[in-house]
Amino acid sequence: MTTPSRRDLANAIRFLAIDAVQAANSGHPGMPMGMADIAEVLWNDYLKVNPANPGWADRDRFVLSNGHGSMLQYALLHLAGFDLPIDELKRFRQLGSRTPGHPENHVTPGVETTTGPLGQGLANAVGFALAEKLLAQRFNRDGHTIVDHRTWVFLGDGCLMEGISHEAASLAGTWGLGKLVAFWDDNHISIDGNTDGWFTDDTPKRFEAYGWNVIRGVDGHDPVEIKTAIETALKSTGKPTLICCRTTIGFGSPNKAGKESSHGAPLGKDEVAATREALGWAHAPFEIPAEIYAGWRARDRAADEAEWSARFAAYKAAYPDAAAEFERRLSGALPAGFEVAADAFIAKLQQDGPVIASRKASQNAIEAFAPLLPELVGGSADLAHSNLTLWKGSKSVAGSDPDANYVYYGVREFGMTAIGNGLALHGGFIPYDATFLVFSDYARNAVRMSALMDVRAIHVYTHDSIGLGEDGPTHQPVEHLASLRQIPNNDVWRPCDAVESAVAWKAAIARANGPSCLVFSRQTLPHQVRTPEQVASIARGGYVLKDSVGAPEIILIATGSEVGLAMQAAQALGEKVRVVSMPSTNVFERQDAAYREAVLPKACRKRVAVEAGVTGFWRQYVGLDGAVVGIDTFGASAPAEALFPHFGLTVERLIEVINAL
Amino acid sequence: MTTPSRRDLANAIRFLAIDAVQAANSGHPGMPMGMADIAEVLWNDYLKVNPANPGWADRDRFVLSNGHGSMLQYALLHLAGFDLPIDELKRFRQLGSRTPGHPENHVTPGVETTTGPLGQGLANAVGFALAEKLLAQRFNRDGHTIVDHRTWVFLGDGCLMEGISHEAASLAGTWGLGKLVAFWDDNHISIDGNTDGWFTDDTPKRFEAYGWNVIRGVDGHDPVEIKTAIETALKSTGKPTLICCRTTIGFGSPNKAGKESSHGAPLGKDEVAATREALGWAHAPFEIPAEIYAGWRARDRAADEAEWSARFAAYKAAYPDAAAEFERRLSGALPAGFEVAADAFIAKLQQDGPVIASRKASQNAIEAFAPLLPELVGGSADLAHSNLTLWKGSKSVAGSDPDANYVYYGVREFGMTAIGNGLALHGGFIPYDATFLVFSDYARNAVRMSALMDVRAIHVYTHDSIGLGEDGPTHQPVEHLASLRQIPNNDVWRPCDAVESAVAWKAAIARANGPSCLVFSRQTLPHQVRTPEQVASIARGGYVLKDSVGAPEIILIATGSEVGLAMQAAQALGEKVRVVSMPSTNVFERQDAAYREAVLPKACRKRVAVEAGVTGFWRQYVGLDGAVVGIDTFGASAPAEALFPHFGLTVERLIEVINAL
Repeated sequence: MTTPSRRDLANAIRFLAIDAVQAANSGHPGMPMGMADIAEVLWNDYLKVNPANPGWADRDRFVLSNGHGSMLQYALLHLAGFDLPIDELKRFRQLGSRTPGHPENHVTPGVETTTGPLGQGLANAVGFALAEKLLAQRFNRDGHTIVDHRTWVFLGDGCLMEGISHEAASLAGTWGLGKLVAFWDDNHISIDGNTDGWFTDDTPKRFEAYGWNVIRGVDGHDPVEIKTAIETALKSTGKPTLICCRTTIGFGSPNKAGKESSHGAPLGKDEVAATREALGWAHAPFEIPAEIYAGWRARDRAADEAEWSARFAAYKAAYPDAAAEFERRLSGALPAGFEVAADAFIAKLQQDGPVIASRKASQNAIEAFAPLLPELVGGSADLAHSNLTLWKGSKSVAGSDPDANYVYYGVREFGMTAIGNGLALHGGFIPYDATFLVFSDYARNAVRMSALMDVRAIHVYTHDSIGLGEDGPTHQPVEHLASLRQIPNNDVWRPCDAVESAVAWKAAIARANGPSCLVFSRQTLPHQVRTPEQVASIARGGYVLKDSVGAPEIILIATGSEVGLAMQAAQALGEKVRVVSMPSTNVFERQDAAYREAVLPKACRKRVAVEAGVTGFWRQYVGLDGAVVGIDTFGASAPAEALFPHFGLTVERLIEVINAL
Repeated sequence: MTTPSRRDLANAIRFLAIDAVQAANSGHPGMPMGMADIAEVLWNDYLKVNPANPGWADRDRFVLSNGHGSMLQYALLHLAGFDLPIDELKRFRQLGSRTPGHPENHVTPGVETTTGPLGQGLANAVGFALAEKLLAQRFNRDGHTIVDHRTWVFLGDGCLMEGISHEAASLAGTWGLGKLVAFWDDNHISIDGNTDGWFTDDTPKRFEAYGWNVIRGVDGHDPVEIKTAIETALKSTGKPTLICCRTTIGFGSPNKAGKESSHGAPLGKDEVAATREALGWAHAPFEIPAEIYAGWRARDRAADEAEWSARFAAYKAAYPDAAAEFERRLSGALPAGFEVAADAFIAKLQQDGPVIASRKASQNAIEAFAPLLPELVGGSADLAHSNLTLWKGSKSVAGSDPDANYVYYGVREFGMTAIGNGLALHGGFIPYDATFLVFSDYARNAVRMSALMDVRAIHVYTHDSIGLGEDGPTHQPVEHLASLRQIPNNDVWRPCDAVESAVAWKAAIARANGPSCLVFSRQTLPHQVRTPEQVASIARGGYVLKDSVGAPEIILIATGSEVGLAMQAAQALGEKVRVVSMPSTNVFERQDAAYREAVLPKACRKRVAVEAGVTGFWRQYVGLDGAVVGIDTFGASAPAEALFPHFGLTVERLIEVINAL
């Protein structure tokens, strides 16, 4: 072999995938074998990335929405020269390797987003493309284009069957994201076999219905057809593009090509040998000939970034403030004055003591903080006026306003959340999304992905309990607070008044390495009196709001709307009672043991927790000798004032339970 | 007024809705006002129901997927003569009324399914239509058609934006459910306003891409056009039909028609008066003239059922066994021999002691029970060979086999679960669906709806922990066991061996009034020795698997794969240790206090729980003095054998923790 053919280059992907899966005795060879030719053309002829600097701001974003084909991405990153040595590929799917079973954004250089849960990669990609559009609108100037990159997505039949593909593709069409290009791996095979029995959509027609540019019938194994399709996609300015690539799963395997048996298991020793024979690949596992490496590294990728850097330098000279702001935005650093301003706002709230619903307090916090934070991009799943997510400066992203910062997501909770994850991962944005707390269910795995990917995403959930009233049990969360708190790395806040609401917002904005769920009431909540020290300790997640005289004989723990009940009960019970407000158990658990002990001394066993939700969660704080006042059934449809007594959430009941300890 | 016009009949709906919302000072008048004309034509000229017997087996099913318009349904039920007196409409959205904020299947006669969470009603309806198809295939005989009814769905823009609409509509197209007819309330308004900014799909084209029969451009306020469209739909035999009805939200309101202001709030006193004026409705709130009632009750609806009853009698004479089986299936009663056969199977398992993965044990249980239960309709979201949901008698529902009992759902977890809810609600079926435990997230709100609607649905979730190994953290559940257990009325089972697995299956099948989540391992689990008494007590959710000599000094509580660890630790620690296997905390919590105290005596405070999941949940059982061994971070990609020690789930660690108490 002297000058390798395109097929040779693609076969390098195939055999890295085949051999890594074989070595791990686990993984998915079929997809990398099927999409290798598409990936080779895209990466070698089009994709704008710099392996030496995976974080280059204006790089193209590549998303593997069908993330089970992770070895395709690892092979590409290795061959293109990213910091992913062959030894890492040999350790595919082993503990501590940089090549986990599915691509993970914080593990592998060059992986933009964690994929595997199907369909979400596409939604992340829509977020990336939206981020690019918004940054371009904000920062580009005449003659100075510093933001101009594309988002490329690989996706499979599984992604297209998932409902989230509908939500994400619909919005991409509405927004006319012309720099988004998706390659559909149309191989007619999913895990259960030939998709004829369960996937008969006319997908091209479906995407045309979303306003996409659809390129049909591309032979996914013919580099010329692939190139032609990409060239057509590049000309599409006002519409995202779907390139429908007819491929063969497990391409090259004499006995498993085109079959589900190549999908999710090693080919097996004999079939690996037969595939080597069939594709004419004479090299040992993990041995890539120098000419193949040379072919993959022929393009001067550093030059792409160098050219951009020169452009950025010119921009910086012409617009120093905008350039500095661009750099700040992409770094993720908050504006210099934010913390001081936020603290001043919080201190003033403590002084003023507004008696309002915490959703209104949330809106006030947005109103206060958003003017300082152009990176804040909000939105709601068609509940803007219920979630109170709009503020005076809100401008829809659908147009071309440089200050665009608000997304009308429509009734698409899952798509919204995953698109927000994409915005955050892209850099330059802190997304907040919103729906009713009960409908966090619809978005649940995307909330989990926020947490797994360490992204700064803010999930605003209003109508936090039976307090929403008449809409009834379908709309009344009961188990949601507890279950969101259990997602690792997810901070849930349920503030009891406007002050705690503002602190929660500040914490969510400042939290660079994970998401926050901010949970707010529909109904009005009382204001609580605090010393400055107490105000400062809200940020610790739990704190003594009203202390006993001497060591506490009884501790009441409460969150949100139930803090008011606890305070009234404490008032009635006298000096022996301590009230702990616990807006965030997640944050409280991260405090040092001494602080936690100071708030909840182990010696005090007469403990009662109160929250308008399932009781099991709180027993960890009250122990076998304590009690919990909450709701372990579904709610009911009635005015909120009728529901709280109906479910026993009253001061009288609380006192009764305390006295019965 | 003598003979009321169709518009008069429709206006009765409008004003019942307007006045009830006004009286409640809460609710959604806009949709009922917009869809009243469609509803009037459908209900008076086509819908086959008998108000005197809402449970008639061969009735048409009507589903209000846009459930916020509940007053439309209540008005229809009242006007058609169901047991929903006017006083109940006056108590709309009040505590204890039969007219809650959103329609609830177990509250209001004639409401087939609980709706409100958008898009799920459509998926339920697909389940209803599938149930009809399967029952017809199974029970109809030449010249004896006893199953022949339609499913009619109302849906709005919100339903169509939700991803689940994609999943459900796609499957309905694939299955060719010709008796499913959906009416799209195409009013261009959602809560955030005119949908131009966030809903630009070409919906008719989209549904054509799913293989639906689409009737475009129907004037939703013209009874003649509506009738013509329905007649066309009735002729569609091999395809579901979408009738696209252009409507005006809040139709008739001079100042709010066509605006989001009519969507989710009372019109207000003045606007109600103006609407009365505009529509010429001179009657006081909740006063319906006799001629209007007469118009609504002109059709002899009882005759429809009487005609069917005569047909069924003839069928019964010709096919007495089939008729008896039909009646049994529809009643929800299990076959006479089931319990005895199940117990024998369980006893034999205890004797044989197979050492297998619990997912394999699950498949064996299906293999044992399914031949006895033709009502069992299984399926998986494209993971049949991983979830092990197929058995020897599995036959796809896609064809016309009378024994069809297996659904290839494709990668559509949410749609699958909501379609299963529809199958269960229809009657005649016990659905089981399946995916990896982690992807229960995608279906979460439908699981909640299973529980809220008291349906017998069985959710099979395999790959229950880090034990799934190499696929990594995106596929490894950590918080899912705890969070599913917190859904009210949902029974979660995590069995430790084949015996507990079979008991869990038996319990799920026998549980007539709620769903069960059956959670199984990918990896092999040891068999546990038990007395017959212990075998019997598995069904109580938690029981003493290995007892201490004398009162326990230490109690170990474990589930699933960790029961083996606990037994080994107990072995090492000697006579003072009791091991409690707790396959279902939900079921255990329903046992009487004496039993619970007998299993977990309050006096014993040295308690350790072990489960490969979040620890907070288990602290309710170990108290402030106990400890939990579990995982509070995300998992990792590696072979399972490497992961358990990595996360500290070993006998040694368990002993260490116990000794440190």
